[in-house]
Amino acid sequence: MVQSSVVTRSLFRPALAKMNAYTPGEQPRDGELVKLNTNENPFSPPPAVVEAICAAASGPLNRYPSPTAEPFRVAAAEVLGLPGPEWILAGNGSDEILTMLVRGFVGEGQSLRLPDPSYILYRTLADIQGAVWEQVAFNADWSLPPAFSSPAESLRLALLPNPNSPSGTVIAADEVAKMAESLTCPLVVDEAYVDFAEQHCLDLVRQNERVLVTRTLSKSYALAGLRFGYLVAQPQVIAELAKIKDSYNCDAIATAAATAAIRSGEWLAETRETLLATRQRMFDRLVGLGFDVTPSQANFLWCRHPDGSHQSMYEYCKANGYLIRYMNYPGHGDGLRISVGTDREVDGCLDLLEYWLTSR
Amino acid sequence: MVQSSVVTRSLFRPALAKMNAYTPGEQPRDGELVKLNTNENPFSPPPAVVEAICAAASGPLNRYPSPTAEPFRVAAAEVLGLPGPEWILAGNGSDEILTMLVRGFVGEGQSLRLPDPSYILYRTLADIQGAVWEQVAFNADWSLPPAFSSPAESLRLALLPNPNSPSGTVIAADEVAKMAESLTCPLVVDEAYVDFAEQHCLDLVRQNERVLVTRTLSKSYALAGLRFGYLVAQPQVIAELAKIKDSYNCDAIATAAATAAIRSGEWLAETRETLLATRQRMFDRLVGLGFDVTPSQANFLWCRHPDGSHQSMYEYCKANGYLIRYMNYPGHGDGLRISVGTDREVDGCLDLLEYWLTSR
Repeated sequence: MVQSSVVTRSLFRPALAKMNAYTPGEQPRDGELVKLNTNENPFSPPPAVVEAICAAASGPLNRYPSPTAEPFRVAAAEVLGLPGPEWILAGNGSDEILTMLVRGFVGEGQSLRLPDPSYILYRTLADIQGAVWEQVAFNADWSLPPAFSSPAESLRLALLPNPNSPSGTVIAADEVAKMAESLTCPLVVDEAYVDFAEQHCLDLVRQNERVLVTRTLSKSYALAGLRFGYLVAQPQVIAELAKIKDSYNCDAIATAAATAAIRSGEWLAETRETLLATRQRMFDRLVGLGFDVTPSQANFLWCRHPDGSHQSMYEYCKANGYLIRYMNYPGHGDGLRISVGTDREVDGCLDLLEYWLTSR
Repeated sequence: MVQSSVVTRSLFRPALAKMNAYTPGEQPRDGELVKLNTNENPFSPPPAVVEAICAAASGPLNRYPSPTAEPFRVAAAEVLGLPGPEWILAGNGSDEILTMLVRGFVGEGQSLRLPDPSYILYRTLADIQGAVWEQVAFNADWSLPPAFSSPAESLRLALLPNPNSPSGTVIAADEVAKMAESLTCPLVVDEAYVDFAEQHCLDLVRQNERVLVTRTLSKSYALAGLRFGYLVAQPQVIAELAKIKDSYNCDAIATAAATAAIRSGEWLAETRETLLATRQRMFDRLVGLGFDVTPSQANFLWCRHPDGSHQSMYEYCKANGYLIRYMNYPGHGDGLRISVGTDREVDGCLDLLEYWLTSR
C-alpha cells in the first residue's frame, strides 16, 4: 500500500484526503476458488452476446461510439415497455449510474439516506462528494420505519436497494410509492437483483418523477465483466443527469453486447428458473443445518447460525476452496451471505458447512 | 430536446441546473459522410486488438474484471519504461480520467485553469463540479504567457493539452517543467495526441509529483470506439485518485483490447509514419491554397484563410460529403480544424476547398 505524504494529500480535496477507498468483494485472480461471494451469475452470458462482441470487434472501432448507447436504449425501452429511449440513461455499470446520481443531486455538505444494513458503496459515494450519509436501520422483519421516508431540508437523495443486500428482501412496490410521496427528494430504487424477484418498481417511474430505478446487466445477464447498467427515469430527469456523464461513457462493444443481452429474454427466463430452484434447495438445506435464513428474492442468501461462528465458517470454507461473504454490520451483527451458484458449487459449499458444524 | 420544469431542476444541484451540457463533435450515424472532424484515426486498430476482443468475449464475462485493469497497467509500465504499474491509473477513456482529476483536486467554488483556445470539455468539467474556470490566452505564436504558471490560492488544477487542440502545437517539455515548478497546484499535461508529436512529458512525472500526464488509445491506436485512457503519475497520487474511481471502471474486454494495443508498437510506428506523411501533404496543399496553416504535431491541422469564410467552407464541405470542424473562439477568431484522414479522404476534402476557393 502506497502511503501519501501530508504534502501530497494537501493537493487533493479535503473530503478525499480523509476518506478510505471502497473495498469491493475479494476477486481472486488465480481461478482456484469457487466464488460465491460477489453475487455473480455462475453461467456464461447469452450466446448472442458473445456473437455481438465479435461482430462489433470488426466494426469501426476507430470511430467514436454512440454518445448515448442509442441501440441499447431503443432495445431496452421496447423490452421494458417504456414509452421511448428518452426514459433510459445507459452507464458504464450501474456503479457509474449511482455516481452520476450522487453527483447530480447531492452537493458538498448535503446529505443522502440509505437503509442499514445495505450497500456500503452509497456511503463511499457520499464521502467522495464531501456529502453526509445517514443510515436508517431496517426493522427486524426487514421493513423500514417511517424515519426512512421523512423529508428533511438538507436531504437530497434517498437510496433503496430493492431487493436489498445482504438480506435479499424486498419492499413492496406500493410501499415504495408511499415512501416517494412522503420524501421531497428523489428516491433511487436500486434494482440490481430485480430479475430474481417477484416484483419491480418500473411502473412507479411513470407516476412520480422523483422515483428513479437503476439496473445492471452484471447479475441476471451474467455480464459483470462487461460493465453495463442503466437508469430508468422520466425524460426531463434523464436529460439533466446526462449533463454529468462523460461524452462517450459506453463503448461500442459494450453497447452491442448489452443490446444483444437485453433482447435475450428466453435465456433470462431459463437462467432465472435454474437459479431460483437452486436458491430453494440452498435455503432448505441451510435451514436443515440450523441456520436462520432470510427468505430471499435475489441470487444470494443471508444466513446466521445460533452457533455464531460466522467468521470461522467463512475461513474454513475459504481454506477449502470456497469463497463466501462474511459480513459484520456494527449495531446489527454478523452473518454469511452466500451467492447462488451452480448446484454443484452450492452443494460443495454446503458440504463444507455441514462438516464444520457436525465435526466439532 | 426535453425541457425541465423549475420543479425538476430544483431537485438537482444548482451548479448542474444552470449549466449546459458539453456538445461533442458531430457523429453522423449513417456513415455517408467522410469524417475529418473529431481527429479519429482513419485506419482499423491493430489486428491483435480484434483478436484479443474475440478471445475475451469467450472468457469469464460473468465474473467481475480486474478492478484496476491490471494486465494493461503491467504492459503499459513496461512499454513506457515506467518503474511499475503503480504509476498508472486506467480509465474508461481519458474523459473519465479528466473527470476524476477535476473531482479529485477541485472543490465547489475553487478554480481550475486552462489555456485558450484549447479543449472546451475542461470548462464543462468545472461547471459540473460547481467550480470556476479561468482561461489564459495563448500568445500569437502559441506559447503561453507567465500568467498561465502564476500560482493562486484558489487555483487547484491547471490543464495543458500538449499537443494542443485546435492548434496542434506543443509547449516544450523543459518549459512545462518550469510551469509545474512555478505552480503550486497539480499540472495535468493532456497528451491525447502525443504519439503524433516529437516529444512527451513522461519524464517530468518522475521529477515532480505535481506533473500528471493523461493519454488515450482513441487517437493513435484507432480505438475511439473502445473508450480507454490512462494517467501517469507518481504512485502516491495514483493511490489517492483511485479512491474516486468506480470499483470496476474498465471492463474485461476493453482491458484485454487495450493491453494488446499498447503492445502493438510496430503497428503504431507504421501508422504514425503514414499519417505524418499525409499531414505534410495536407499542410503543403493548404498553404498552396492560401491558408495560414499552423505547423502541427498532432493528427489534425488548424487553418485560417485570409478570405475568412470558414463557416461557408465548412458548410460547403458538409453538403458535399466531408465533415470538417468549424471552430469559433470568442476573442480569438474562427478557423477550420481538419483531421488527418487517409490520403484519399484528405484529397477529396482539399479538392472541395480548392473548388470553392477558385470558383467564386
